[in-house]
Amino acid sequence: MTEASSSTAAAAGRSAGYVQSLERGLAVIRAFDAEHPRLTLSDVARRTGLTRAAARRFLHTLVDIGYVDADGRLFTLRPRVLELGYAYLSALGLPDIARPHLERLAAVLGESASASVLDGTDITYVARVAAQRIMSVDLGVGTRLPAYATSMGRVLLAGLPEAELEDHLGDLAPLTRYTITERSHLLAELERVREQGWSIVDEELEEGLRSMAAPVRDRTGAVVAAVNVSTAARRGSVTTMVDDVLPHLREAATAITDDLAASR
Amino acid sequence: MTEASSSTAAAAGRSAGYVQSLERGLAVIRAFDAEHPRLTLSDVARRTGLTRAAARRFLHTLVDIGYVDADGRLFTLRPRVLELGYAYLSALGLPDIARPHLERLAAVLGESASASVLDGTDITYVARVAAQRIMSVDLGVGTRLPAYATSMGRVLLAGLPEAELEDHLGDLAPLTRYTITERSHLLAELERVREQGWSIVDEELEEGLRSMAAPVRDRTGAVVAAVNVSTAARRGSVTTMVDDVLPHLREAATAITDDLAASR
Repeated sequence: MTEASSSTAAAAGRSAGYVQSLERGLAVIRAFDAEHPRLTLSDVARRTGLTRAAARRFLHTLVDIGYVDADGRLFTLRPRVLELGYAYLSALGLPDIARPHLERLAAVLGESASASVLDGTDITYVARVAAQRIMSVDLGVGTRLPAYATSMGRVLLAGLPEAELEDHLGDLAPLTRYTITERSHLLAELERVREQGWSIVDEELEEGLRSMAAPVRDRTGAVVAAVNVSTAARRGSVTTMVDDVLPHLREAATAITDDLAASR
Repeated sequence: MTEASSSTAAAAGRSAGYVQSLERGLAVIRAFDAEHPRLTLSDVARRTGLTRAAARRFLHTLVDIGYVDADGRLFTLRPRVLELGYAYLSALGLPDIARPHLERLAAVLGESASASVLDGTDITYVARVAAQRIMSVDLGVGTRLPAYATSMGRVLLAGLPEAELEDHLGDLAPLTRYTITERSHLLAELERVREQGWSIVDEELEEGLRSMAAPVRDRTGAVVAAVNVSTAARRGSVTTMVDDVLPHLREAATAITDDLAASR
């Protein structure tokens, strides 16, 4: 066994035995995205901060294990990398359970429906069904958004034990002129969400975007996920959304909660 | 820099400078799945073939970088690992383009619709819309199936230049009593698929399952993906499927091809 761990990583507060080459190899995978699907060795070195020699070793290792394709000077990811992210989705079970309910919700309302979980100060989308509208907001599974400024985030934050809340709030930066950025104001809003059992966020994440969310619970009643419906603010008033969307949203959240309980 | 590469890896035909600890760390991520969402250190060691000491170092590294959660003795994946698989999907672009067309296809036919790409001798699902039926086949994004015995695989194989075909055929193992396992028979079938521009596979992958696929092409006319509709064989005859499903399937494949050309 010759796994090397870096003393600088240990100095940066990492665990004893920290495997820096794993962190660096994962950074090489993440260097590829929609704007950068094909990268040269130099691109990868620049985007990861690695030396060219190190970037070359990681790329060739990823080629050897089937995660990266090399075509001349250009490298691309191969479909096999899906098995990494999908190990999570498959372990979670939730996306498969949520998807048919989200599809029904999106079909009934003609708006996009999603499910997400809390991860640190962010929410991460784990399932999403887009509305058929051309102008629909396009966020895929795996997208991360700040919890404090999203309807699903507020439902997830409101479901936390008080002692854990602090770790999941993060910086309350203004994302639009409507974003709640005062801590006391946000805590009051979370209390309201907890009491009423749903949340609405009106142009706080992005101007023109309104979203409503409800919690999915496990058998113990703990909030484990949130589902939402998002819509263009110009399509109607907040009151209309409460009247037209909320009953369907709560029905879907309850159905997912029930299916989740039945599945374990 | 202290990245270590293993001499045994080099002996096994790996590149010079092979980073074995990256391969091992990725194996730890893959150790988690739907049947094994929560693993102890011993579980991870057993499922990866690593020593407990090595498994501990990788797990703690993954905890440090936010990909794994530790709760007492149990480890679980965290949502952040999605960013690995989604680096690929986002780089590919195809799933976002295909999804609305697959949703329309699934809605019109009441059957599941999917898109996949070729990866070695397998196809990998990159998008999927399940039918609303309770008994629908449940295969998620990232699922791998052998190309030679699937309708999407045959469309993808039929689109290959002849010189490349051999590398993508693999072993033609019988998966049901109907699977084509003779090479000459399969090559004749691929020729037919190439000429007619679509493929049907009837209970060759799994008894009771029938599937039909059509190619998605890039601007040069090369086949880059396949879309399919799958159904229970008992729901109708092959002739019915050609009459009822094929026109919608081809329309969806053409629409995705057009949108893909417009997107680049």
